[in-house]
Amino acid sequence: MTENSALLTDMYQLTMLQGYYEQSMEELAVFEFFVRKLPKNRGYLVAAGLDQVLTYLEQLRFSPDEIEWLAGTRLFKPAVLDRLAAFRFTGEVHAMPEGTVFFPNEPILRITAPLPEAQLIESRLMNILHFQTLIASKAARSVLIAEDKLLVDFGMRRAHGSEAALLAARASYLAGFDGSATVSAGMSFGIPVYGTMAHSFVQTHSQESQAFVHFAEANPDNVVLLIDTYDTERAAQKVVDLVPSLQEQGIKIKGVRLDSGDLADHANKVRSILDRGGLQDTTIFASGNIDEYKLDDLITQKAPIDGFGIGTHLDTSADAPYLDCAYKLQEYAGIARRKRSEGKATWPGRKQVYRHYDDSGVMIFDTVTLADAPCSGQSLLQSVMQGGTVTAHRPGLIEIREYTRDQLHRLPVALRKLSDTPAYSVVIAAELQALANWVDEQNP
Amino acid sequence: MTENSALLTDMYQLTMLQGYYEQSMEELAVFEFFVRKLPKNRGYLVAAGLDQVLTYLEQLRFSPDEIEWLAGTRLFKPAVLDRLAAFRFTGEVHAMPEGTVFFPNEPILRITAPLPEAQLIESRLMNILHFQTLIASKAARSVLIAEDKLLVDFGMRRAHGSEAALLAARASYLAGFDGSATVSAGMSFGIPVYGTMAHSFVQTHSQESQAFVHFAEANPDNVVLLIDTYDTERAAQKVVDLVPSLQEQGIKIKGVRLDSGDLADHANKVRSILDRGGLQDTTIFASGNIDEYKLDDLITQKAPIDGFGIGTHLDTSADAPYLDCAYKLQEYAGIARRKRSEGKATWPGRKQVYRHYDDSGVMIFDTVTLADAPCSGQSLLQSVMQGGTVTAHRPGLIEIREYTRDQLHRLPVALRKLSDTPAYSVVIAAELQALANWVDEQNP
Repeated sequence: MTENSALLTDMYQLTMLQGYYEQSMEELAVFEFFVRKLPKNRGYLVAAGLDQVLTYLEQLRFSPDEIEWLAGTRLFKPAVLDRLAAFRFTGEVHAMPEGTVFFPNEPILRITAPLPEAQLIESRLMNILHFQTLIASKAARSVLIAEDKLLVDFGMRRAHGSEAALLAARASYLAGFDGSATVSAGMSFGIPVYGTMAHSFVQTHSQESQAFVHFAEANPDNVVLLIDTYDTERAAQKVVDLVPSLQEQGIKIKGVRLDSGDLADHANKVRSILDRGGLQDTTIFASGNIDEYKLDDLITQKAPIDGFGIGTHLDTSADAPYLDCAYKLQEYAGIARRKRSEGKATWPGRKQVYRHYDDSGVMIFDTVTLADAPCSGQSLLQSVMQGGTVTAHRPGLIEIREYTRDQLHRLPVALRKLSDTPAYSVVIAAELQALANWVDEQNP
Repeated sequence: MTENSALLTDMYQLTMLQGYYEQSMEELAVFEFFVRKLPKNRGYLVAAGLDQVLTYLEQLRFSPDEIEWLAGTRLFKPAVLDRLAAFRFTGEVHAMPEGTVFFPNEPILRITAPLPEAQLIESRLMNILHFQTLIASKAARSVLIAEDKLLVDFGMRRAHGSEAALLAARASYLAGFDGSATVSAGMSFGIPVYGTMAHSFVQTHSQESQAFVHFAEANPDNVVLLIDTYDTERAAQKVVDLVPSLQEQGIKIKGVRLDSGDLADHANKVRSILDRGGLQDTTIFASGNIDEYKLDDLITQKAPIDGFGIGTHLDTSADAPYLDCAYKLQEYAGIARRKRSEGKATWPGRKQVYRHYDDSGVMIFDTVTLADAPCSGQSLLQSVMQGGTVTAHRPGLIEIREYTRDQLHRLPVALRKLSDTPAYSVVIAAELQALANWVDEQNP
C-alpha cells in the first residue's frame, strides 16, 4: 500500500546518473544515513522504516510509462533511458534493526552498491527512514511516561497524506503504542485498531441517551461512549442511568471518552459518577490535543484516565516536525570521501557503531569507528541485504515492538526526560579522525 | 498515484455506520470543513486539495478484500458488510475554488449527503484538505515576498511520506512556486521539474573541475553546478576557468548553486567572481535550510540570488505543522445542529461566505451567514458535485495557480507580513447567531 514509483525521486538523481553512465562511473559507492543533530527536546532517537526501505529496494523498477515520460522531457539520452529501463538495485544494506535507539553521527543504514544505484535511491530512502524514525522517536516519549496506559494513534486526519497516516500508525505501534484508529493500518500491518464514536453521532440524535443506546446496541462488544458533546458530567450520569436496560440485553459499557475541557478535572468528576453508579470497571479514555507534555501533566496529577488517543501531535511530530538527517557518500571506488561544506562536514569511510552497557544493561556510551577497525562493545549495524536480496531474518512488527521496548528500557534515566536531557556520549574513534584528516589532505 | 482505499478512515466511522444502518438513520446530513483558528504567524490561509477530494468521492469503494478483512474483525454484522460492499458516495459538494484565500470559521467545503456517506468520508477528506491547505498557505508566504525569484520545492526527502511529497509539490506550485525537484510531480501533475547535482557527484570525482565538466557534458541544456562541497569561492573561480573549453562544445553554464554557510555573503562574492569572469548571465541558486523568514532576510539584504530551493520547512510546514481544522455536522434531517464542547463549539446550519472588496479590489471583510440568507458581497462556496458526480468545471493546475495569484494580490498589505499580522474581519451574521441560540434551546 506504500508507493514505490521509481520517479519518486529528486530530478538531480537522474541528471547525475546521466553523468555517471556517460563516464562509466559505476564502481562501488558507500553511502550512510545518519542524523546530524537532535531536535530540541529529544535526548535519543528510535530507528524505524527499514522494512519499507528493503521492500523499496527489492521492487524498484522504472515502468514503461515512466521511461516514456522521461523521454518526453528531452533531458535524457536514449542510452541513459535504456539503462534506466533495465535498472535494478543489486547492492548491500547494513542497518541497525528497527527499534534501535541511536544518537547523532551514528549511521543507522549503510548502502554499498554501484554508484548510480546507490545514488538514485537517496530521495525515497530518506523519505521513508526520516519519517518513521521521526514518529517512532516521538511516540517513544509518550510510551516511556505512560507504559501502563492504553495509548492509541488518533492522527490520521492531520497526518501529512495517506502514507504518513499509515506509517505513523506503524511507527508508533513499533515504539510501544497499543494500536491506531486508522483502519488500513490494521489490514496492512496487523496493528490493533481502536474506534469509538464521534460528536456527530450524538448530534444526529435528538437525545444524547438515545445515541448511547443506539451505539451500544450496534456495537455491543465495543461500547465506548463519547460524553462531552454538551455537558460531560450530565452525560456521565446518563451513562449510569442506562446500565439496567443495557444489562438486560447483556451489554456492558466498556468505557467513556472525554475530548475537551480540563481533562483531569472532568476525569475526576466522571470517575466519581461512574463509581457511584456501580461502573467501577468502565474505563475513562481521553483525547483532544494531547501530546507527551500534557500526558505527563495528567499522569503527574494522577488523573483517573486509563487510556489516551494521541493524534495530531504524534502524527506530525508537532514540536519537531523533521530531523536534520543526511544520506552521504562515504567512499567511492575504494577511496574514503567527505564533504566539508560549512556546518555540514561528514565523517568519511564505512562505519560501525559499538554500544557499551553497564552491569545492569543500561547503555553508557557508543563508539563510532571504521567498519573494519577493532572495537569492544555491541556492534549495531548488521548485514540485511546482499545482491539486492534480503538475506537476514525480517522481524515482524510484534517482534520489533518487543525489541524496541527492551531498547527503551536500556536508556539512562536522565535521557528519558521530556526536556533538558543531557547529551549521550558518542565517541568518534581515533581511526575515524585520522581518516578524516587523510581525506582532507587529498582535497586541500 | 494518491491512495484512496476505503479503509483509509478512522475505525469510529465504521462503528458509527453500523449504528446508522441499524437505526435506518440515512436522512440528509450536512457537514462543513473549516479551520477554527489560525496558527501563530499566519494571517490568512489558501484553500487547496479539492481536486483530490472530488476524485476520492467519485472513486470510493470497498474492495472485496477489504470487506473480507472487515468481516474477519468480527466487529461488523453481515447486513452492515453488505451495505459497505455496495457503498457509493451519492451526495453534493459545495466548495471554495482551490486557491481561495480564507479565514477562521469560514467553511471551505460543505458535504450534503445521506448521513452514513457524509460520515464515512470524514477522515480522508480532512487528511487531503488539511495537508494541501497547510502547504499552499505556507508556500504563499514565500511567494508574496519573492515574486520575481525562481522558487522550487526541494522537500521530498523530509516530506512525511510519498503522498506528502507529491501533494506538497502540487500545493506549492498552486500557490505560486515555479516547480519542484520531485520527478513524479512532473509526471502526475505536469509540474515543471528542476534538478541540478548533489555533493556526492563532486565527491566521486578526484577533481571538482572534472565533476563540473562531466555534469555539463552529460546535461548540456541544464548546467547548474553545485559549488560548496569544499570551498565556495574557489569553486566559483573553477567554474569561470571552465568557460572557454565548454564554449567550444557549445555548452553554456546556466547557474551555480550554494547550499551552506552565509548565503548572502557567498552570493555576493560568487556574483563578483562570475561577473569578472564574463558570466553575468549565469544565475545563482541557493538552498539549505531556507524558509520564508530567511528568504525575507536575504531579499532585505539584497543578496544577488536569483532562485531558491525550499525544502524541509515548506514540505513539513515546519513552523506550523498542522491546522486546527474540523469537519463538523451542521444539520441532520432538516434540523440544524451544533456541538458545545468546551472551546470547540461550532456555528450550526448550512453556511455561505460572502467577501467584500474595496474599489481597488482588495478584500476588506467577509460575512459568514446561512446559505439561504440574503447577503451582499461575492459568494465563495460554489456547487461542484451533485449526485456523486462532478458537475462544475474542474480547473487545471495552471488555471488554479493564476486564480491563486489573483487572490493573493487582493490581500490587504498588512496581512502579507510574515508575523504580527492583524486579524481580518469575519462577521458572523445575525441569522447565524440566532440559529445557534435556537439550537442550544433545543438541547438545554
